[in-house]
Amino acid sequence: MELWFTERHTPSVKFSIKVDRQLYTAQSEFQRIDVFDSKEFGRFLTLDGYMMLTEKDEFIYHEMMVHVPMAVHPNARRVLIIGAGDGGVVRELTRYHQIEHIDLVEIDELVVEVCKKYLPQTACRLDDERVHIYYEDGLKFIRSKENEYDLIIVDSTDPFGPGEGLFTKEFYGNCYKALKEDGIMVNQHESPFYDEDAAAMQRAHKRIVESFAISKVYQAHIPTYPSGHWLFGFASKKYHPVKDLNAAAWNLLGIHTQYYNTRLHAGAFALPSYVEGLLKDVEP
Amino acid sequence: MELWFTERHTPSVKFSIKVDRQLYTAQSEFQRIDVFDSKEFGRFLTLDGYMMLTEKDEFIYHEMMVHVPMAVHPNARRVLIIGAGDGGVVRELTRYHQIEHIDLVEIDELVVEVCKKYLPQTACRLDDERVHIYYEDGLKFIRSKENEYDLIIVDSTDPFGPGEGLFTKEFYGNCYKALKEDGIMVNQHESPFYDEDAAAMQRAHKRIVESFAISKVYQAHIPTYPSGHWLFGFASKKYHPVKDLNAAAWNLLGIHTQYYNTRLHAGAFALPSYVEGLLKDVEP
Repeated sequence: MELWFTERHTPSVKFSIKVDRQLYTAQSEFQRIDVFDSKEFGRFLTLDGYMMLTEKDEFIYHEMMVHVPMAVHPNARRVLIIGAGDGGVVRELTRYHQIEHIDLVEIDELVVEVCKKYLPQTACRLDDERVHIYYEDGLKFIRSKENEYDLIIVDSTDPFGPGEGLFTKEFYGNCYKALKEDGIMVNQHESPFYDEDAAAMQRAHKRIVESFAISKVYQAHIPTYPSGHWLFGFASKKYHPVKDLNAAAWNLLGIHTQYYNTRLHAGAFALPSYVEGLLKDVEP
Repeated sequence: MELWFTERHTPSVKFSIKVDRQLYTAQSEFQRIDVFDSKEFGRFLTLDGYMMLTEKDEFIYHEMMVHVPMAVHPNARRVLIIGAGDGGVVRELTRYHQIEHIDLVEIDELVVEVCKKYLPQTACRLDDERVHIYYEDGLKFIRSKENEYDLIIVDSTDPFGPGEGLFTKEFYGNCYKALKEDGIMVNQHESPFYDEDAAAMQRAHKRIVESFAISKVYQAHIPTYPSGHWLFGFASKKYHPVKDLNAAAWNLLGIHTQYYNTRLHAGAFALPSYVEGLLKDVEP
């Protein structure tokens, strides 16, 4: 028997993974949740049929979401994560002893339950005593927060469905307010390659630039996301993502990583010319 | 009607492109050659069913093969290209007025004819008077060359089929001999992500390190190649790919690029930790 999971990266491009078996499927209040097992990628999670993570390459996304801001901020102690019910961002954050408090706001409790059961590789640190999980809409949660966090990580799904509100000007403005005076926000920023993703990337950048003094974009190779060329946003009130990188201090922490390193940190902000052009087109 | 081209990136991973129509198909003495037209990628060329280039993303591969060494070598005048019958490398090279002579060695004459007819976007400069085309086996062509070229670009297919010999120790040793005392060799270096590609990358690196004093690997995002994470080798007798980059001089040339720029140049050599590990594993 052959069983294939297929995602349309555009109406004319399909990416397919041979599946050993479907481990879980359900429709939550918010979205369809599936977990599959495969030879090539190990287990993988999809929401509404879109790839969220695979065991083989999730390290790239999660390391780049966490270690880039953590190597810049000199003393991040209070962190807010929006989304990320799979636990991957939490796993990387809990490797820092200096972090005292992590609020995780995930709209869909079933995602967390499913990941705890089927994806222990990412969900392994959700029980860390520093982690506080709120099953709420991130957009609403953040409205009341002011001057509270050193770091906000927006690990959203795509800008349609449940994640739509996390790409709005109002949301980014509230993140700015919720951050301390030297706070950093990092967000998943879609891809520059296919037209629809590139348009989403431009919209997000335009709105972040309106709120933050420093707003840069960095990239990573994520083979299971459309085009494999994925972007992240680094928005900050004070710290520059490359000039304020403290490579020596980060390397002294002795955190073992598979993708991130402090040389790659600077390199990730060196974008292809066409991506720079797309970003400049929406800057004031 | 739906017509899809599908390439297996591994036995368990398929990448599929919706095709408008097949423009050309033939079996040459060496390989099967196909050209398709598609909405998402424009025209694209496959050899033995493997993606060689698409009109949408070929600029990434060709710019990274050419401008990286050209921004390092202070005075490249004589260039040898092995493979590259599609003309993409030649197109980028002919943008440099300083280049006086380009030898292009392509084993399969039919590839050149087909690209001239169906892929003018890349084949547009094959008639430049500086370009001399030899329809020969690159492995044999290079054996008699000594101290002749400033730059050799190995634009090979994968290390099986007609391109196999271009991944051998003998070939890299002959490239070393054919280069002048400050010569540079650049080669397509497969991908680090899927096991079989990673093994090919390690084999190539091991053999290049044995011949060249300086041997570094750099990366680019190429969405239509397996995993989208593609590597190139930079091997040199004298120049370091980053320390000897002359960014000011290159920028003064005023060459307009869509992917390459001199900030990205340095960033491209900052590899993920797992890729560094794979390379170190085969270094002496």
